Amino acid sequence: MNKFQVIILGCGSAMPTTMHHPPSQLVDLNEKLFMIDCGEGTQLQMKKFKARMNKLHSIFISHLHGDHIFGLPGLLSTLSILGRSGDLHIYAHKEINFLINPFLTYMGKYMSYKIKLFPLNPERQELLFENKSIRISSFPLKHRIATNGFLFEEKESPRHIIREMIDFYQIPFIRIAEIKEGADFVTPNGTVIRNNILTLPGNPPRRYAYCSDTAYAPEIIPYIRNVDLLYHEASFAESELARAGETYHSTARQAAEIAGAANAKQLVIGHYSSRYNELEVILKEAVAVFPNTELAGEGKVFGL
Amino acid sequence: MNKFQVIILGCGSAMPTTMHHPPSQLVDLNEKLFMIDCGEGTQLQMKKFKARMNKLHSIFISHLHGDHIFGLPGLLSTLSILGRSGDLHIYAHKEINFLINPFLTYMGKYMSYKIKLFPLNPERQELLFENKSIRISSFPLKHRIATNGFLFEEKESPRHIIREMIDFYQIPFIRIAEIKEGADFVTPNGTVIRNNILTLPGNPPRRYAYCSDTAYAPEIIPYIRNVDLLYHEASFAESELARAGETYHSTARQAAEIAGAANAKQLVIGHYSSRYNELEVILKEAVAVFPNTELAGEGKVFGL
Repeated sequence: MNKFQVIILGCGSAMPTTMHHPPSQLVDLNEKLFMIDCGEGTQLQMKKFKARMNKLHSIFISHLHGDHIFGLPGLLSTLSILGRSGDLHIYAHKEINFLINPFLTYMGKYMSYKIKLFPLNPERQELLFENKSIRISSFPLKHRIATNGFLFEEKESPRHIIREMIDFYQIPFIRIAEIKEGADFVTPNGTVIRNNILTLPGNPPRRYAYCSDTAYAPEIIPYIRNVDLLYHEASFAESELARAGETYHSTARQAAEIAGAANAKQLVIGHYSSRYNELEVILKEAVAVFPNTELAGEGKVFGL
Repeated sequence: MNKFQVIILGCGSAMPTTMHHPPSQLVDLNEKLFMIDCGEGTQLQMKKFKARMNKLHSIFISHLHGDHIFGLPGLLSTLSILGRSGDLHIYAHKEINFLINPFLTYMGKYMSYKIKLFPLNPERQELLFENKSIRISSFPLKHRIATNGFLFEEKESPRHIIREMIDFYQIPFIRIAEIKEGADFVTPNGTVIRNNILTLPGNPPRRYAYCSDTAYAPEIIPYIRNVDLLYHEASFAESELARAGETYHSTARQAAEIAGAANAKQLVIGHYSSRYNELEVILKEAVAVFPNTELAGEGKVFGL
C-alpha cells in the first residue's frame, strides 16, 4: 500500500506562541510532499522534522491571511539556494500576486527554478491536480476572506493478483499488468478466465480533507463525506462560541459535529487560538461529540 | 547606569539549520528595543526570549538579503494585531519598498499603526536617530549588495553629584539637575563653588557596533574604533578563506583582526555558515588573535 500520511508542521493561529507554529502541513503520498499553507517558519519546521525539501511537489494555500503565507518567501528562496530546477506550482487565490510578484521581481534573476501560480476558485469545487495515484481538488469554506479547503483523493489502486492463480494458469509475466487493471486471461487453448477469479479488489482509495480556516459550515459536508481523515480547525472551546462566530472560526464541538455529519473515519483538530495553554478542554469537547478525534501537534504524523 | 545590552535572536546565515535562526538581534537600551535585522521567525524568537513587543522602538536592516528581512511581514502584522499605535520607523536601503509596499497595499487598511521608511546611505556614515541617551548611525560595509553596519553610541551621561557636598553646602533640590549637567553652585552669600568640587564624571559613554554581512574590510575601522562591544560576522573558519572572499563574508580570524585593529573591548562573532555543526574551530581561530571573543548564540545577552 502506498504511503499516505499528513505531517503537521504548525497548528497554531494568527498570534505566534512558544507552543505552536503558524499553520502548515505536508501531505506525504509516495514520497511526494504536497504542502498545505505556509506560515512563518515553515522551512525551519521542515528541517526540524526532517522533511526533505527536494521532495516538495507543490503548495496549496487555503487563504491569504498572513499566518498562512508568511513562510513562503523564505521557503521559495531556500529552494533556489538548494538548486531546485523543476517548476514549483502554487495553488492560491489570485491576490497572492501581491506577495509573489514583488518577490520574483526582486529575486527573479537569481532563482534556480520557475514558480507557476494557479488561481483557486472560491465559489465551487475544482480539480487542481491529478496524476496516476492522486486527485487534488479545492472547495469553498466560510471565512472572512475567500478561503478554500482541499481534498486529497487516492485513485483506485490496481487489483491484487492471486499468486496461486498465476501458477495454476501459468500466466506469463507480460500479462500481469493488464490483469491487475481488470483484464481477463485467455489460455493458449482459448479458454477465457474471468478477472474476478484471478484477482482480489485493490485497496480502497483513501481520502483526506483539510478545512481551515472556517466558520461552522454544514454546506461543506458534501465535499468531505466519508473521508478517512478530516483536519478541521477548532480555534476555540465552546465558551468562546460567540467569538468563533464573529471571527468566522469554529469551536471544537462544531468541528466534531461536521466530522460526524460527514461520516469521517477520524478527525484531527488544530488552529488553536493563542489563548489556550492547555488543549484538554478543546479535545474533551470534540471527543464528546466525535470520539475518534486527535489533537494536531507540531511533528505529529497521521497515517491514512 | 542605564541598561545597555544586546540580545541575540538569531545568528545563523542564509541556509536555515536546526541550530541557528537567521539574523536578528535587539539592542536594549533603557527598556527601549532597537531591532537589527529581522530574519524569518524573529517574532517567534522574541516570544521565546520574552522580549516585549510593545518595547520595540525601531528596526534597522543591514541589507536586503532574504535571511535578514523575511521576518518583517510576520512581525509587522503581529504588532498590528497587538494594537500598536505609535509609528514604526524602519531604516533600510530604499529597495525595501519591494517588500513593504505590497505588504502595506494588502494589509494597509487593517494596520493599527503607520510604518515610516528611512533610506540608508550605502556610501558614507550617517546619523539615523538620536534622543537624550543614544545616537545611532550607519556606515558602509563591504558585501555583494549595498550593506551597512550600525553604531549605537550612548551619549555622555550626567555627572554624579557627591552626596556629602549637597549636605555640606546645603544645596537645594531645585539646583541638583543643573549641577549634574555641569553648573557651578552659588551659595546664598555669593561664593561660587566650582562644579568639579561638587561632582564626579558620569559613566563613560558606551558604544556598540554591528558589522554583518561583510567581507574583511579594514576601511570600517575608523567607524568602530574603541567600541565596547563589536558584533562582527564570522561566517567561515580559515579553511574556507577563499570561499569567504568570493561570497564577501569573513573568517573568524579576520573578524578578530578587525576587533584588534579597532581596539574593541569585546568581540562577539556570529552569522555562522550552515556547514558548521560545531563552532569550536571558529571560536578558537578568533581567540588566537583576539582573546576577548565570544560566540553569539540564540538567547545570549551581552551587556555593555
